[in-house]
Amino acid sequence: MIKTIDWRDDTVVMIDQKRLPREERYLTCKTHGEVIAAINDLTIRGAPAIGIAAAMGVALGMLRSPVTSPSVFRETFDDLCRQFRKTRPTARNLFWAVERMKAYFSRIFPPDAPFDAAFLRRSLADEARRILNEDIAINRRIGGFGAALIQSGDAVLTHCNAGALATGGYGTALGVIRAAVGQGKAIHVFVDETRPVLQGARLTAWELMQEHIPATLIADNMAGYLMFRGKIDKIIVGADRIAKNGDTANKIGTYTLAVLAQAHGIPFYVAAPTSTIDLETPAGDAIPIEERAPEEVTSWGGCRVAPEGIAVFNPAFDVTAGRYITAIITEAGVAMPPYDESIPAMAGQTRLNEGC
Amino acid sequence: MIKTIDWRDDTVVMIDQKRLPREERYLTCKTHGEVIAAINDLTIRGAPAIGIAAAMGVALGMLRSPVTSPSVFRETFDDLCRQFRKTRPTARNLFWAVERMKAYFSRIFPPDAPFDAAFLRRSLADEARRILNEDIAINRRIGGFGAALIQSGDAVLTHCNAGALATGGYGTALGVIRAAVGQGKAIHVFVDETRPVLQGARLTAWELMQEHIPATLIADNMAGYLMFRGKIDKIIVGADRIAKNGDTANKIGTYTLAVLAQAHGIPFYVAAPTSTIDLETPAGDAIPIEERAPEEVTSWGGCRVAPEGIAVFNPAFDVTAGRYITAIITEAGVAMPPYDESIPAMAGQTRLNEGC
Repeated sequence: MIKTIDWRDDTVVMIDQKRLPREERYLTCKTHGEVIAAINDLTIRGAPAIGIAAAMGVALGMLRSPVTSPSVFRETFDDLCRQFRKTRPTARNLFWAVERMKAYFSRIFPPDAPFDAAFLRRSLADEARRILNEDIAINRRIGGFGAALIQSGDAVLTHCNAGALATGGYGTALGVIRAAVGQGKAIHVFVDETRPVLQGARLTAWELMQEHIPATLIADNMAGYLMFRGKIDKIIVGADRIAKNGDTANKIGTYTLAVLAQAHGIPFYVAAPTSTIDLETPAGDAIPIEERAPEEVTSWGGCRVAPEGIAVFNPAFDVTAGRYITAIITEAGVAMPPYDESIPAMAGQTRLNEGC
Repeated sequence: MIKTIDWRDDTVVMIDQKRLPREERYLTCKTHGEVIAAINDLTIRGAPAIGIAAAMGVALGMLRSPVTSPSVFRETFDDLCRQFRKTRPTARNLFWAVERMKAYFSRIFPPDAPFDAAFLRRSLADEARRILNEDIAINRRIGGFGAALIQSGDAVLTHCNAGALATGGYGTALGVIRAAVGQGKAIHVFVDETRPVLQGARLTAWELMQEHIPATLIADNMAGYLMFRGKIDKIIVGADRIAKNGDTANKIGTYTLAVLAQAHGIPFYVAAPTSTIDLETPAGDAIPIEERAPEEVTSWGGCRVAPEGIAVFNPAFDVTAGRYITAIITEAGVAMPPYDESIPAMAGQTRLNEGC
């Protein structure tokens, strides 16, 4: 089983996704700063995995902080939360995980509670590990709900990596595919390479090959032609943030797939935990979209291809309006349009989203 | 001025497009086999440029052929034409150029004509050079017609390279942009990098920088998001083959742009010489689509990114139905729908298409 991230001997261990599929190497983070760097440089990526990393990073920071006074301990915690919130702006799960750690900290260390640093540190680490373990269980539930939408013989297109590597394990979009395959359904997966960082070519292709699920890699701009030729039955992607009305931020290129899906009458599914839902964001236009370094576009696999000095636009995500989305699959079930009703209802059902 | 291909001292000299923009190096082909290799490995690419290369390659082959009998001379010519026709299946201009050379050969060397090998060879080389020079003049006419469709202040998206490098010079889609800029219009060009061979990132970005035309490079899957944000006013692309009904084969990814353009109400233009029109092909589904090596998708510049053993689908072109195309700009004017009337009429107007 692919182990994306783990808490081990009071360190955070993660598979280095920058090096996949060339080498399977693990990074051991001993400080919260190393976890922040790993989030920023995409050693770990994928909204749910970023959330887990942030929770573990906060716990790690508290474990390494000097024991002084209760007030300094509280300030250190708040400062760590602030630092992790600043890493990447789009993924809702990052903020969700930090909020969950804050709510948990308030519960175990209310005002005027006795100051037991060892207990508090251990408890925060336990809570971060619970987030990891719950995420894997959540993905299996998403897989179960989603697999019912997939028929044997389907060719399913996916974009970026919404697999085990993007989560605590099992995956969201790839979790649905894993679950369908587990039910004995014959599935062929078309994998968008997903420029500029090539998460599809590097990570999704690798995950599917590890499990011997038949897959074909394409450049992103070939998906439309495959749809035109009738070669795609379903599209399933993950999500970085889902607004209250169902508008969904996901890896750049997702919106294009959704427009193509509608033009060809192909079902377009989003699979994500309810922790990706942001009820504070009414619609997609309020979702902040991260722009990343031009070098991601001007180079390919480390090789410079574009001329020096060319201007670049490099948004990491785009927003797909809910009207393009056939259904949103979460651990609480399958939300259907109208999303402004089904999404708040679904988010309300889950204890996890209530801050535990 | 960018010199894509030239006939010099009885050799064919071409800029090595595989090495751009890293280095500006010229390849000198002394045999027709070297020209065939250059077409196959994309040292020279772009439908009109492939046509010119094939004409020059046939002339070069005749120049180097041993003088024997008239019948062997004729057989050698036919064999050369066959060899060039087998290089790349989609670009109409390749077949057009070979047909033009054949028609010219029949005119200068009819049955029972006296056999003057030196005259015939010189004449074939002259005809190939005429194809080159006419192509540049044609592109300037395309530019003139197309520039009338572009307003100052427009942001224009283009895909692949339909520039000087894809033609004898000046370009088709980029010729329209050059002409608009030449008229003093302020144009900003968004350049699709154009996976898998990155003609946009390597060639179009380089051409536009050479001429100081403001340009921004994007990954192909970012174009939809730019359209959604209202940042694209026009789209203009070249063509590899235009069927009688206006259906157009062009670089893979073009179809996706056309679907997106229609969804966002953005004009979508094709610019190409009438030699790209194939009246023998009634509709797009009859256009042969070349599939190229998987390594174009799994690697770049020697860097392997995808896992070994992953299956790949790598079509070099797709077909855009005429109903997605706002207008087709040729040297004979601007064809508008219904294309099944305007395209045959336009092709009929041009002497060049009649085999000279």
